[in-house]
Amino acid sequence: MKINGQTYRSVWLDADGWSVRILDQTMLPWRVEQLRLETADQAAHAIRSMQVRGAPLIGAVAAYGLALSMRTAPQALHDTAAMLNETRPTAINLRWALDRMVLALANLPPAERAAAAYAQAAAIADDDAETCRLIGSHGLPLLQEIAARKGRVNVLTHCNAGWLATVDFGTALSPIYQAFDAGLDVHVWVDETRPRNQGAALTAFELGAHGVPHTVVADNAGGHLMQHGEVDICIVGTDRVTRQGDVANKIGTYLKALAARDNGVAFWVALPHSTLDVAVVDGVAEIPIEERSASEVTHLTGPDETGVLRRIQVTAPGSAAANPAFDVTPARLVTGLITERGRCAASEAGLAGLYPEKFAG
Amino acid sequence: MKINGQTYRSVWLDADGWSVRILDQTMLPWRVEQLRLETADQAAHAIRSMQVRGAPLIGAVAAYGLALSMRTAPQALHDTAAMLNETRPTAINLRWALDRMVLALANLPPAERAAAAYAQAAAIADDDAETCRLIGSHGLPLLQEIAARKGRVNVLTHCNAGWLATVDFGTALSPIYQAFDAGLDVHVWVDETRPRNQGAALTAFELGAHGVPHTVVADNAGGHLMQHGEVDICIVGTDRVTRQGDVANKIGTYLKALAARDNGVAFWVALPHSTLDVAVVDGVAEIPIEERSASEVTHLTGPDETGVLRRIQVTAPGSAAANPAFDVTPARLVTGLITERGRCAASEAGLAGLYPEKFAG
Repeated sequence: MKINGQTYRSVWLDADGWSVRILDQTMLPWRVEQLRLETADQAAHAIRSMQVRGAPLIGAVAAYGLALSMRTAPQALHDTAAMLNETRPTAINLRWALDRMVLALANLPPAERAAAAYAQAAAIADDDAETCRLIGSHGLPLLQEIAARKGRVNVLTHCNAGWLATVDFGTALSPIYQAFDAGLDVHVWVDETRPRNQGAALTAFELGAHGVPHTVVADNAGGHLMQHGEVDICIVGTDRVTRQGDVANKIGTYLKALAARDNGVAFWVALPHSTLDVAVVDGVAEIPIEERSASEVTHLTGPDETGVLRRIQVTAPGSAAANPAFDVTPARLVTGLITERGRCAASEAGLAGLYPEKFAG
Repeated sequence: MKINGQTYRSVWLDADGWSVRILDQTMLPWRVEQLRLETADQAAHAIRSMQVRGAPLIGAVAAYGLALSMRTAPQALHDTAAMLNETRPTAINLRWALDRMVLALANLPPAERAAAAYAQAAAIADDDAETCRLIGSHGLPLLQEIAARKGRVNVLTHCNAGWLATVDFGTALSPIYQAFDAGLDVHVWVDETRPRNQGAALTAFELGAHGVPHTVVADNAGGHLMQHGEVDICIVGTDRVTRQGDVANKIGTYLKALAARDNGVAFWVALPHSTLDVAVVDGVAEIPIEERSASEVTHLTGPDETGVLRRIQVTAPGSAAANPAFDVTPARLVTGLITERGRCAASEAGLAGLYPEKFAG
């Protein structure tokens, strides 16, 4: 997608033909800074320090990190893959991408691994971009239908499921970008998404950089907006969808799904195939929820009026804070799922219709 | 209530017998600073700049502000009352307190007004404290019942409905203070309450200062906590309760009420008589919601690591923000109301049972 008219992906090969470029997302939205990665260790650091985040993007950067290491240490394939895999232990796409790389490289002579690794990493990145493009195509009719009925389309989204979390296009934001590029009058309510503010910082940044009209609101505001007809459709991303269609996503998603149901607003979830976990059935009961550092609740960083980044405390000194990072929205609250293969109900039957191979046996 | 073992009210007469002391709430929780008010203009400034906030406290400070003016300009009673009334046009208690003062003073000779004004302001403050104490007494059995059943009582609250918003005790927090003082094992989940963070700043501060165990969470977390049995009861305050029991309160309250219903958690609303507005029936349709400055969403102030207060930006530069300050929770989501006269259903029948005089005619 675009930043000030220039087209970007969130990870790409440098003009030198071998080093890897990313945007430092810890500096967004304050500064658009590119980082150049030359080693697998630098790729691992970028993932660990959340300079890149979002499951699909992490997988692609890890794949490129492994490719970087194949230039100088092709015999260390398994060790380097293991090192990269440990950077974010819970990211399902990370393991998937590294497994795919190792499978493609392990049986090659070391001297041939580098070229094959770059080709495979590029394929992983291209596949993700195409998957996200298809998600956008299958979500677009939902927005076109609203536009045909009432003109302006007001979408509410939570967290960041945009191109910055993937290689390109995004998941939840992909239909929105396609709608905007097609000339629809689309406007996005962007949930701030406390405590890490991925909405206020990243979603607002990437929508703004591409030119999509949007308004940031506190996470508290969505219910009120829906009560007053200000939201036509909710579209969110997800970190894991279970066999029965329960949706794990950023903390607070469940509250928006409740408000959507209470007000007759459609609540859609966008996901690529890799997010479906058929081994889990009941999301609320089975999915362990990561408890992150309390400091994400108690402190915030941003630029002061002179542009200097400051870290301030926002809670009463001495007060404890808790920070569950995700919640689970039961399938009963989800209008439907948008995937690269089409849309379906948030149910085993719906998912099995699109992904029969995952439900076989 | 207490700050580090010392008992405070949120407004009180100075030891000099005539000037008025408040805590500067714009400095809380970072600094506990008293302000001394000597004139009605200073009282008006304190209200306007939100050094004092919370409907009951605003009313009491305005009453004392009028008393201050009666010392030097008793003939300007009506003008000064009008000036004070304009400080926060939508605060229902402000008008009520000033009307009560004018009624008590207008027919007195100017020379007698000062003494009567101080007596009346003290009565307004004492009445509010007693009202809040009674709310606590009527809410306490709800917490005792939970404690008897399961030991620890986990309460979730939103915004600040504590003693800092009233003269003493608070509304939603009054039962919690009484439970804590009675030795119950009570723990409070404190919603941060973006965008102004009254929970993270004021509720956390006052609970901590009194010694009540509590944990600050992002507003997004409450639904997840309820899904996992971590919340026994929600208690919130309110800015206005309608004839049919709809509840206007800080933005985001409605989302917590939805989550409470979805998880079988009791959702109670604490209010004094002055908050009941029988002229309004349907809260969602009829109550106008104040849209506050976008800067409350885009910027936050707090101390950096050296203790210097810094104002930082937290949203992407150039992105618009919207800031509806309140929402309305329909009566159907409210388990019941806690008032100074007892508990009742959130309905016209329930309210008429406790306040027959307001429904007469």
